[in-house]
Amino acid sequence: MKFAVLGTGTVGRAIGGRLDELGHDVTIGTRDPQATLARTEADGMGNPPYAEWAAQHNGIRLASFADASAAAEVVVNATSGEASLEVLGLAGGENLAGKVLIDIANPLDFSAGMPPTLLVKDTDSLGEQIQRAFPAVRVVKTLNTLTAGLMVRPDTLPEGSSVFVSGDDAEAKAVVSTLLKEFGHTDVIDLGDLSTARGTEMLLPVWLRLMGALGTPNFNFKIVR
Amino acid sequence: MKFAVLGTGTVGRAIGGRLDELGHDVTIGTRDPQATLARTEADGMGNPPYAEWAAQHNGIRLASFADASAAAEVVVNATSGEASLEVLGLAGGENLAGKVLIDIANPLDFSAGMPPTLLVKDTDSLGEQIQRAFPAVRVVKTLNTLTAGLMVRPDTLPEGSSVFVSGDDAEAKAVVSTLLKEFGHTDVIDLGDLSTARGTEMLLPVWLRLMGALGTPNFNFKIVR
Repeated sequence: MKFAVLGTGTVGRAIGGRLDELGHDVTIGTRDPQATLARTEADGMGNPPYAEWAAQHNGIRLASFADASAAAEVVVNATSGEASLEVLGLAGGENLAGKVLIDIANPLDFSAGMPPTLLVKDTDSLGEQIQRAFPAVRVVKTLNTLTAGLMVRPDTLPEGSSVFVSGDDAEAKAVVSTLLKEFGHTDVIDLGDLSTARGTEMLLPVWLRLMGALGTPNFNFKIVR
Repeated sequence: MKFAVLGTGTVGRAIGGRLDELGHDVTIGTRDPQATLARTEADGMGNPPYAEWAAQHNGIRLASFADASAAAEVVVNATSGEASLEVLGLAGGENLAGKVLIDIANPLDFSAGMPPTLLVKDTDSLGEQIQRAFPAVRVVKTLNTLTAGLMVRPDTLPEGSSVFVSGDDAEAKAVVSTLLKEFGHTDVIDLGDLSTARGTEMLLPVWLRLMGALGTPNFNFKIVR
């Protein structure tokens, strides 16, 4: 399938790289491709410059948010939660219409330091905000509850764990569930409509404390039942 | 140990019954013991009248919130989150001072129907509100992330799962962790100070959606790492 992955950070690279490895067609979307390729410093998260990563991933193209989205069948929102609505606006509603949008972003506010706090209360979610802003897009919220490496390689944990999907479009959720299984997920739980993204986005406060207590982001929730 | 369990509902009965079974000294605290014993109808959650339950638990006393707390070494807050601060006020700061308070309550607002929403955002928690209102109490937040039956019998699930403790007093957390192991918990994760209760209280939105999706409250989070 043809994917646009919006975002050049840790999550965008993890998803893009894995999709490419699995034989999918991948274009990474960014604000200004030339500026992204010209950067020679590590980004704010300590990732090496994009050009360095891209040199090891020859099959992956880089394009503007709009061009990447226009050419894609499935679009992945791998941007920061604060930037997501603006970035999707740049991608363009007309380029997104009718497509599956996999929303991985977490609505976190880092402005007051660590740990970040949520930009939403449990009466709304970023997933729903995106769906309201782009009603013709088929939003599926998933993968926002685990670290980037484990999103695409959950089998590196010592046992199986769980991942969640939320969305209003059953067919879109089926497409995403199949993809999650390609990544190696063995327990995909369909929580229901997109309002259930309120639940998974609000997992971040405990995720952040668990990372602190365990001293690693390499853990995941397994729903034992 | 001598326990006061504040609350006669599902959680209070589960905790009180299990403590009694384990050989602890248990007094259940209620607003008005005579009124509680006089009730002949099921409660709002469908539990049989308290007197019926009490008849099967002869070793467990019933007393006012204040009398139960005054006589106890450890106090368990098993009231609804909306009522917790008022109930602890009735228990009396002087009766609680210096004692370990196990806070199981979730700050949920049922006034707008199901699913309930949180009374706090992730910049505060009920656990911290209790600690601020009763500074001499040693609050430990725990067990609020699973259904009552599994709080005290986690071994009825097909495999081990995780439970969390949050609190500012290391000795109080050690007392509670030992108790959790008596209940059968095999993975007690110390998240850190009481502000980490913001994480576990905010697990409720996804817990509620999981109950809906799975059709049962009999599940728990296991942190795979």
